[in-house]
Amino acid sequence: MIDPTAGPGWLKHFPLLADLHRSSGRALAQDGIAGTITAILLIPQALAYALLAGLPPEIGLYASVLPVIVYALLGSSRVLAVGPVAVAAVMVSAALVPYAGDDPARYLSGALILSGLSGAILLAMAALKLGWLTHFISHPVLSGFTTGAALYIVGTQLSGLTGIPVPREAGAAGIVAALFAGRGRLDPETLAFGLGAMLLLFAARTPLVALLMRLGLKRETAGSLGRTAPLLLVIVATVLSASLDAQARWGVAVVGAIPQGLPRLSLRFLAEDGWLQLLAPAAMIAIIGYVESISVAKALAFRRQERIDPDRELLALGCTNVIAAVAGAMPVAGGFARSMVNYEAGARSQLAAVITALWVALAALLFTGLLAPLPKAVLAAIIVVAVWQLVDFASLRHSWRYDRGDGAAQAATIAGVLAQGVEAGLMIGAGLSLLLFLYRTSRPHIAVVGQVGDSEHFRNVLRHEVRTWPDLLLLRIDETLYFANAPRVESELQAYIVEAKQPKDVVLVMSGVAYIDTSGLDVLEALATALAGNGSRLHLAEVKGPVMDRLAGTDLLAALGASRVHLSAHGAISAIQSLTR
Amino acid sequence: MIDPTAGPGWLKHFPLLADLHRSSGRALAQDGIAGTITAILLIPQALAYALLAGLPPEIGLYASVLPVIVYALLGSSRVLAVGPVAVAAVMVSAALVPYAGDDPARYLSGALILSGLSGAILLAMAALKLGWLTHFISHPVLSGFTTGAALYIVGTQLSGLTGIPVPREAGAAGIVAALFAGRGRLDPETLAFGLGAMLLLFAARTPLVALLMRLGLKRETAGSLGRTAPLLLVIVATVLSASLDAQARWGVAVVGAIPQGLPRLSLRFLAEDGWLQLLAPAAMIAIIGYVESISVAKALAFRRQERIDPDRELLALGCTNVIAAVAGAMPVAGGFARSMVNYEAGARSQLAAVITALWVALAALLFTGLLAPLPKAVLAAIIVVAVWQLVDFASLRHSWRYDRGDGAAQAATIAGVLAQGVEAGLMIGAGLSLLLFLYRTSRPHIAVVGQVGDSEHFRNVLRHEVRTWPDLLLLRIDETLYFANAPRVESELQAYIVEAKQPKDVVLVMSGVAYIDTSGLDVLEALATALAGNGSRLHLAEVKGPVMDRLAGTDLLAALGASRVHLSAHGAISAIQSLTR
Repeated sequence: MIDPTAGPGWLKHFPLLADLHRSSGRALAQDGIAGTITAILLIPQALAYALLAGLPPEIGLYASVLPVIVYALLGSSRVLAVGPVAVAAVMVSAALVPYAGDDPARYLSGALILSGLSGAILLAMAALKLGWLTHFISHPVLSGFTTGAALYIVGTQLSGLTGIPVPREAGAAGIVAALFAGRGRLDPETLAFGLGAMLLLFAARTPLVALLMRLGLKRETAGSLGRTAPLLLVIVATVLSASLDAQARWGVAVVGAIPQGLPRLSLRFLAEDGWLQLLAPAAMIAIIGYVESISVAKALAFRRQERIDPDRELLALGCTNVIAAVAGAMPVAGGFARSMVNYEAGARSQLAAVITALWVALAALLFTGLLAPLPKAVLAAIIVVAVWQLVDFASLRHSWRYDRGDGAAQAATIAGVLAQGVEAGLMIGAGLSLLLFLYRTSRPHIAVVGQVGDSEHFRNVLRHEVRTWPDLLLLRIDETLYFANAPRVESELQAYIVEAKQPKDVVLVMSGVAYIDTSGLDVLEALATALAGNGSRLHLAEVKGPVMDRLAGTDLLAALGASRVHLSAHGAISAIQSLTR
Repeated sequence: MIDPTAGPGWLKHFPLLADLHRSSGRALAQDGIAGTITAILLIPQALAYALLAGLPPEIGLYASVLPVIVYALLGSSRVLAVGPVAVAAVMVSAALVPYAGDDPARYLSGALILSGLSGAILLAMAALKLGWLTHFISHPVLSGFTTGAALYIVGTQLSGLTGIPVPREAGAAGIVAALFAGRGRLDPETLAFGLGAMLLLFAARTPLVALLMRLGLKRETAGSLGRTAPLLLVIVATVLSASLDAQARWGVAVVGAIPQGLPRLSLRFLAEDGWLQLLAPAAMIAIIGYVESISVAKALAFRRQERIDPDRELLALGCTNVIAAVAGAMPVAGGFARSMVNYEAGARSQLAAVITALWVALAALLFTGLLAPLPKAVLAAIIVVAVWQLVDFASLRHSWRYDRGDGAAQAATIAGVLAQGVEAGLMIGAGLSLLLFLYRTSRPHIAVVGQVGDSEHFRNVLRHEVRTWPDLLLLRIDETLYFANAPRVESELQAYIVEAKQPKDVVLVMSGVAYIDTSGLDVLEALATALAGNGSRLHLAEVKGPVMDRLAGTDLLAALGASRVHLSAHGAISAIQSLTR
């Protein structure tokens, strides 16, 4: 049998090259189609997200060429579609308004510093194996953060949609106040472009696809046609605005001249002073970008029976963002919606991403000069419709119903983002969920257990019909034994033993104990000593391998001896009974 | 049978009164003896610890009368000996030097504020059920803190022992520098008193007791005689200093006039401004005092087959410290050495503590006026010898050997206390041990398990000779499933399943899972969906009761159905085999 993955050894470190090495012509064609569909989605989004970040529209296009190719070469995901994303864009804006004030040159170089710094932070995390730090953002907090940020983004676009000026540093409440105060300055032509674009885009989602399917098109074809709506809208709106001369006649804000072509690679942004001020926001952008990317990548990889290497992804996204900085682009990450489109359009390898990048480059080289009359309100509409999918209150309900603590953390994150801004909201949520976890683990569950019927299985006496023995107490500890629960475990074990009128044998069933730290060990040693002093014996059962490795050589194990450490609770009972008999 | 605990119902809330109600004359006599022995130990320590806190010596005596009686009435421990303790005293000094500067009146009222605030904080923690917060100080960190504080205390006393002036706010390094710089000002007579006292006290510990035992005395009698050494030393040194006129002749620093009697209760300290500045140190004093007290109380209670109620202790120690403030005293806590002496001297109830308090009151009323010529160097010697027992490097070695993380946290605490002061050292240690715990739980152990012999017990295939089945993968997750390990658990489960070439049935053995939060649930639901998509089935086994309660009603359980949730791993195997057959 020929191994389809055969090839030079180094190839396996570059999934894209390995894929190309063994791909058939048909697979390559499929990648070409998927890449083209993704490009059609990406180009208007790239322009819009740059606007969302407060940057010139071309910065979004630059972020969709070189960085995409670098990720394609280095990333371990075959279908992740990298590029500018809405949440990172709004974080860029939040970081740069206080950093740059009204200086557009400093604002732009600040964006490149954010790209470079967040890339460097990801690379440092890869080198120091610190990827686990990002795990401290729980699903509910991430979901709350996304919902909060999406709502806030919608708020920021209301100015562009209505023509009412809103100060850029305004929070959610400030936006509402400014819109209300400036309601007299509403610009009807801008609103017409914005509302019209929004209606078209929403219509192109479900109603249009349903209509096309009723006309006999297949679901996939109908869906692909629906996805061309933003690009078609951009073209139509540009033509319309130019022919109506919307800017001169009504003062409709337009995109204006976009330099054609791609910028030269440059390290000039490194010379900017005060970049240390951007370190914290860059870390946030890096973490959120990475968490979003990896969760999409993992979900899609498992469907394809592949694996994602989290450390490799840190490295790949780190390099991608460093390149973004050098290529004059805003920070990038893997987008959820875009990757799903790419996957569903049949992408099989990162060749699709390369095709996407080539289309974007082509657009930048040939067509951007034509976009000057495009009303900004249309881009605002694209942003609103794109981020509206991210608003997810069902997830909040789901979290709250399953786990009050998680629900509270999620709600606090949404509220925090809206009231205090994106960074503070994220910190509030992450801090709260951590506190709740610590509170929970500090109150472990301890159960008195007995034998279930004739089986060798032991369960809680309060929940199951079980057999117990006089003079013999079986206690199951359901948590890692560590300092924060050691005092409570000690009190509870003592209470159970006193309540059982000092049984002859006490068996601790350790199936739920994954780790015992020094404080936990102290508790067990004190318990063994105290029991021995009263003529009772302590036994351990079902101690996990890694815990046993650690206990070997402790005073506890020396005091118990091999005869009082049992493989299973059932084994402990047999041993104790044969001893007493 | 007559219940010995009988009496009015409210009695059971006051262990002291209940004890008195049912005590025999002999028990009362034993309490009287124990209380007297404890008083002999306490009186010199009370004077010395007040000096350590930078306060007039009588403040230590005041702390040993009313607060002791209040604790005796309210506390749930029968043998805890409350009073001034060395670690709290040095924390008082650390807090008050920056607060009061050189104003002795403000310094004194600051000490009362610290007592009152730390009492109020303990009461608030009792009311809000926040006692668990104190559990975040691990045994190694507490031990490191005690060792560090003891070393630092020894350092602070070198000035009193040698007569070389050292600025009060100096840290460990500052003390060494000041002693070196002032070496020419060493006072030989002060040193003679100090060194002589230290030698006597050390000799009275082991050598004297050994000698007395060789002369035919029983161990207990010899020990009790040894414990009178500090009090005898105070008397002898006072007489010697007075007859030699040490202060006038050589300038030896003496205690000076101590007001006889006990102060009136007063709330005047409440009027002091700037007390908010003392909130953080008061919280630290409250927490450390409580942690020390409760650990001694618990250890002694279990020996007596009794229980300590942590919430009750918060209340009792809170009231005790509030009373200390009103009674013009420094903060108090349960002392380790003193409680051991009390217990070993035969104390059976808090009557012993009341006796102790009465002796201290008697001393304050009758004898303190006589103590004016007592050299301060003798009190410094008493402090050094008392805290020297707290220095415990064996514990550091023990922690390091068992758990590198705990050892590192302990060493960091010692170093932090010496380099940065008591409060910063405690925070460094507690923060570090928390980070290490989070790191650990974020990397859970997952094992492929199989059947051990013919038993119904399942263990790791890598560690035990076990039976496995083709097309069937049993995976045991050894940790609470929560957000910080959910991504890793997801990756690892996916890797095991891909590696096993997509088995028909995947059983997750949940014996080690005490809790599943929303992020963990998401991982399991995604896994169930993905497996179903590939024609495999997910099963759960050995799910703990509390976890099962939560899972009821989730999409996960709806997707699995009752037939794929098994009581035990063994049950899962039987069910799967009968299904496939």
